[in-house]
Amino acid sequence: MADLSRLSVNQLTLPESCSMPDFVDVLVRNEVPYASLWRDKVRGFGVASTARLVAEQGLGLSGYCFAGLLNGPDPAEAARARDEVRRTLDEAAVLQAPCLIFIAGGVDARDRKLADARARALDGLAELVPHARSVGVKLAIKPMHPMMCAARSVLSTMALANDWCDQLQADDTVGIAVDTYAVWWDPAVASGIARAGSRICAMQVNDWLAETQDLRLDRGMMGDGVIDIAALRAMVEATGYAGPLEVEILSKRNWWCRDPDEIIGVIKDRFASVV
Amino acid sequence: MADLSRLSVNQLTLPESCSMPDFVDVLVRNEVPYASLWRDKVRGFGVASTARLVAEQGLGLSGYCFAGLLNGPDPAEAARARDEVRRTLDEAAVLQAPCLIFIAGGVDARDRKLADARARALDGLAELVPHARSVGVKLAIKPMHPMMCAARSVLSTMALANDWCDQLQADDTVGIAVDTYAVWWDPAVASGIARAGSRICAMQVNDWLAETQDLRLDRGMMGDGVIDIAALRAMVEATGYAGPLEVEILSKRNWWCRDPDEIIGVIKDRFASVV
Repeated sequence: MADLSRLSVNQLTLPESCSMPDFVDVLVRNEVPYASLWRDKVRGFGVASTARLVAEQGLGLSGYCFAGLLNGPDPAEAARARDEVRRTLDEAAVLQAPCLIFIAGGVDARDRKLADARARALDGLAELVPHARSVGVKLAIKPMHPMMCAARSVLSTMALANDWCDQLQADDTVGIAVDTYAVWWDPAVASGIARAGSRICAMQVNDWLAETQDLRLDRGMMGDGVIDIAALRAMVEATGYAGPLEVEILSKRNWWCRDPDEIIGVIKDRFASVV
Repeated sequence: MADLSRLSVNQLTLPESCSMPDFVDVLVRNEVPYASLWRDKVRGFGVASTARLVAEQGLGLSGYCFAGLLNGPDPAEAARARDEVRRTLDEAAVLQAPCLIFIAGGVDARDRKLADARARALDGLAELVPHARSVGVKLAIKPMHPMMCAARSVLSTMALANDWCDQLQADDTVGIAVDTYAVWWDPAVASGIARAGSRICAMQVNDWLAETQDLRLDRGMMGDGVIDIAALRAMVEATGYAGPLEVEILSKRNWWCRDPDEIIGVIKDRFASVV
């Protein structure tokens, strides 16, 4: 029997039409022990209702996705974005999620200064540390693929995530989420993971399709692409990480068109064979 | 008057329907001093005919695009790929192009081992050095954006390009092409360019659109995206590079739908204002 005791499924892996109760139900029915919940879905169903449902069903949470996008050049907008992260941290605490995935934000076309956008992201993150600490939820900063640098996140490499952590000096509250999709291409990924060490507080798995057709919504099922996922998992586990391994596949043209039970069945097979 | 004395236009910036004579004509008519020619276009028109046309019209060449893709796991395929690069080097010599853009090749879904794919690319490149030296054409190894790692090139960063050059010890024959599109996101781009120093033998400019819709064919005109092109140019020129600055914009949904004279007009404006 394959060991599925660390399997987590991110809510966005299932089709939009799958409701919160259906999502929890399909995981529990298929004996998936962990889930990562998506903010908009949680708010739609209600934070307290979601917390109750998850607890009743005995589903563990690997994380809460996501908040951030706080590095714009307008100070008032940035302040509102930080408040929104604080609100999402509060929700994560209610849900008893161990971490909130933090996405820095991209490059504003109004200023085009990437170094400034990175500095503002780090400053904003620093301002959030006290609140995260007070509610007991880790901020899991997630390097995203460089192709998302403009639209979504200026945090593009493990090296930069480590640099930020060095500057924040808040390893009790700020961790790093390693997503295979984001880091697999990096010639320095091994040293970046080793350097992160115990900062790694989450791992997401999925695959890069050889014929990727979309920058955001064409992720592949583990085993359908070119990433050596097992090698990356081994690097992460060599740091001591022994938490959930979360399947996050945003796939508009394929998996989002399928039946939830079928998707979970394939995930379990692939988790056992290639992760 | 803006200084356009270093402006080069890559042939693939113009629509597919633009013939070789039309391409040369539109550049000369608009007083663009340099071009970079596209291999398939050259072969279609004939190498000798192209060389004659370009020389007659007094058009300088900044480079020849491209060859490589030689890092597959099958030895016979790899040998054929190396022969194809040698043939393309010969063509570049006939054209009197100073360099041939070298694209490493991606990750073969048959083996999924990125480190092996990188090692094979470097090995293949090493085998080509004597031929490139003998015909007097530089191999301009071009880091490509990490989103092309699977499909096109495992050479994903300036740091890796520098590592390869260190190992090759052939700086007389192997240089580095810096493409703004490929490197702009890299937190280590400044140190990577500085480290490259006199290895930099070509520079390509274009922009990253905030709402990029395609991984390969949705590049932006300088000024239409988020890249601080002038800052990258300054970094490259600080190394001593004083050669052509080549506009390479693959844009299926926008520029490839426009009239060549219009495109060249916009390029000249933007080259003067934002490059």
